[in-house]
Amino acid sequence: MAVGLGPLPDLLPIAGIRLAVAEANIRYKGRHDLALIEACAEATTAAIFTRNAFCAAPVIVAREHLARGNARYLLINSGNANAGTGDQGLVDARRCCDAISEVMSCESTDVLPFSTGVIGQALRVDRIEQALPKLKSALSRDAWTLVAKAIMTTDTLPKGISRCFHIHGEAVTITGIAKGAGMICPDMATLLSFVATDAQVSTSLLQRALAEAADQSFNRITVDGDTSTNDACVLIASGAGSARVTEGETYLLFVRELIRVMQTLAQAIVRDAEGATKFVTVSVERAGNESEALQVCYTVAHSPLIKTALFASDPNWGRIIAAAGRAGLQNLDVSRINLYLNRYCVLRNGALNPDYTEEQGVEAMAGEEILIRIELGRGDAQAQVWTCDLSHEYVRINAEYRS
Amino acid sequence: MAVGLGPLPDLLPIAGIRLAVAEANIRYKGRHDLALIEACAEATTAAIFTRNAFCAAPVIVAREHLARGNARYLLINSGNANAGTGDQGLVDARRCCDAISEVMSCESTDVLPFSTGVIGQALRVDRIEQALPKLKSALSRDAWTLVAKAIMTTDTLPKGISRCFHIHGEAVTITGIAKGAGMICPDMATLLSFVATDAQVSTSLLQRALAEAADQSFNRITVDGDTSTNDACVLIASGAGSARVTEGETYLLFVRELIRVMQTLAQAIVRDAEGATKFVTVSVERAGNESEALQVCYTVAHSPLIKTALFASDPNWGRIIAAAGRAGLQNLDVSRINLYLNRYCVLRNGALNPDYTEEQGVEAMAGEEILIRIELGRGDAQAQVWTCDLSHEYVRINAEYRS
Repeated sequence: MAVGLGPLPDLLPIAGIRLAVAEANIRYKGRHDLALIEACAEATTAAIFTRNAFCAAPVIVAREHLARGNARYLLINSGNANAGTGDQGLVDARRCCDAISEVMSCESTDVLPFSTGVIGQALRVDRIEQALPKLKSALSRDAWTLVAKAIMTTDTLPKGISRCFHIHGEAVTITGIAKGAGMICPDMATLLSFVATDAQVSTSLLQRALAEAADQSFNRITVDGDTSTNDACVLIASGAGSARVTEGETYLLFVRELIRVMQTLAQAIVRDAEGATKFVTVSVERAGNESEALQVCYTVAHSPLIKTALFASDPNWGRIIAAAGRAGLQNLDVSRINLYLNRYCVLRNGALNPDYTEEQGVEAMAGEEILIRIELGRGDAQAQVWTCDLSHEYVRINAEYRS
Repeated sequence: MAVGLGPLPDLLPIAGIRLAVAEANIRYKGRHDLALIEACAEATTAAIFTRNAFCAAPVIVAREHLARGNARYLLINSGNANAGTGDQGLVDARRCCDAISEVMSCESTDVLPFSTGVIGQALRVDRIEQALPKLKSALSRDAWTLVAKAIMTTDTLPKGISRCFHIHGEAVTITGIAKGAGMICPDMATLLSFVATDAQVSTSLLQRALAEAADQSFNRITVDGDTSTNDACVLIASGAGSARVTEGETYLLFVRELIRVMQTLAQAIVRDAEGATKFVTVSVERAGNESEALQVCYTVAHSPLIKTALFASDPNWGRIIAAAGRAGLQNLDVSRINLYLNRYCVLRNGALNPDYTEEQGVEAMAGEEILIRIELGRGDAQAQVWTCDLSHEYVRINAEYRS
């Protein structure tokens, strides 16, 4: 069902980063469900985590450990989210880190744990421990694709991308992978993303770059407005390459490429949203500021009425203007609003464009990729959000799954 | 499909109020689609309207006319919302009022127009005009039920209720009707409600009572978060009875009964929400203040993940706590949160209640009426919101309808 999401491209190794996968039988049988990412000793690490007050045990432990300094190991399991597991969940997450520290001869606090899968069930740490020797011996620079697959839960396709570019003549590679079927999947739909580069970036600058890129990517997608207790995105800079990112021009270059990588990953999650049949860009332009542009973007992108109309390929502009109208903007002058579906102008200055025909609307909605563009006529700010439609399949998947 | 919504009870006439219906063939054939409500000259009128910036032509005209003083006539048509109709829509709404002023010998500004139905199509004012003489001759005190039916669009059942009570020994009657299938129906799902009483109430006090009651009723229901361009609720006090409502005790008595009437009407709209199979009360208690209680209520009530789980009768408490966790409350201490499904305690102090069993959860979710109760442990405030589940039928209805 994934909308316009092809097979995984070649994922380039990142100097200074090794990866491995294993079968731990945590919940799934006969597939890799455990992954380890190892960063060289010089690497810097940045991470962002779910803002949900009910965050899962591994998120709490990862935050603690990251506060102590850069991480060396990311341990990721699929099949069990270790969420809603109370104090035992914390004990289990720490036990995983202890086990890695023993096998890899590092500090426990050098390890960040990540879990995705069903909630409310105890994590089988014993099975993870048993798989660690195998995991250690499998470490290689070329396992990005295997890791992208091992962290999948209800994803229909693995998600990843690599980019190469130059900073002051020095080559830089960024490789990123992600999992998540649009924050909608039965297992709490955790969004996990792991991105690495060989550039040299200080920890503080790396954190700033990650926050900025996330704001233009993972924070701009929505499937159903629900966010998970386990969401996390980690960015590692191994520093094994020659390029150096500092304040100023090199930072801007680096962030621009990082945004491209993370937007591709974020959009892949929307494209793979369960039940999605359309990939929809909501673009609000000529807004007074970015915040009000986002307000309208999200009101449109969250509207079940609009999302069901999208599923039906119905150019139901009435639902779109009604959503814009209730977005809560102060003194919204509807007589300045223009609305476009793809290249067709539906409303001009708040009134139906006399040149617009139902046939144009039907044509615009027939494709898999739809652009809803709203001009507010209030200024020069703009924002975009990516979302999908609301289909029978969404209800089926989310209703039939038993927690 | 309506959940626990029985046939219309007897609707009591209100002294000083006459009503009539007619077939105007505005869009529907062979059914009443035009209604008139007449208030005696002494009546006071209060109204609240949609806050959507894109409000429909009749809403604009009704607001203007009400600002000029109490209304004498409410003219309501179903089948066409006269929304998204630009300047012509305003001309048409005014023409309707002019036509009533001629037939009923009143000022145009004494008339409030209301429309519900499809959007973006010109209103057939000529057909409304043709039906007015018939409408005039049909005026009677006993047509509440007919009006409740005439204003229906995609409602499966008419909605209405009467209440009798006493204020200082004087009998008071309130009769109210409403239409709307949960702000979700294809025709923009206008919510219209008309309530009348024979009590004597000043215009300003009546407006205050209406605002207060709406805040506890129509403003506490949600089906999908969408609000219509045409929503309106009117309260008329004919003053033809002997009871007098003034500041203080009589006001409190009156508002208490008004809230009951309007809560019944509001809940009836949720019960009749298209595709609804469950009627769900979300109650957030021990909150720091009412505003944060409502914030959590709405985050839970709007979550498609929770709504699909409700449809599946799945006691998916993980989705509920995840919604509470992302509601945006500052310093939410999850270790103080209790969660109940009907009478069963699922979470106590943020952790799974050891006495809770999956069987209890399944039992709680099996019924048509479900109570989700969350105690935040932050204070004494509380709030309730009523909603329904998200079913296959919802997607079918909203996707298959072509605007």
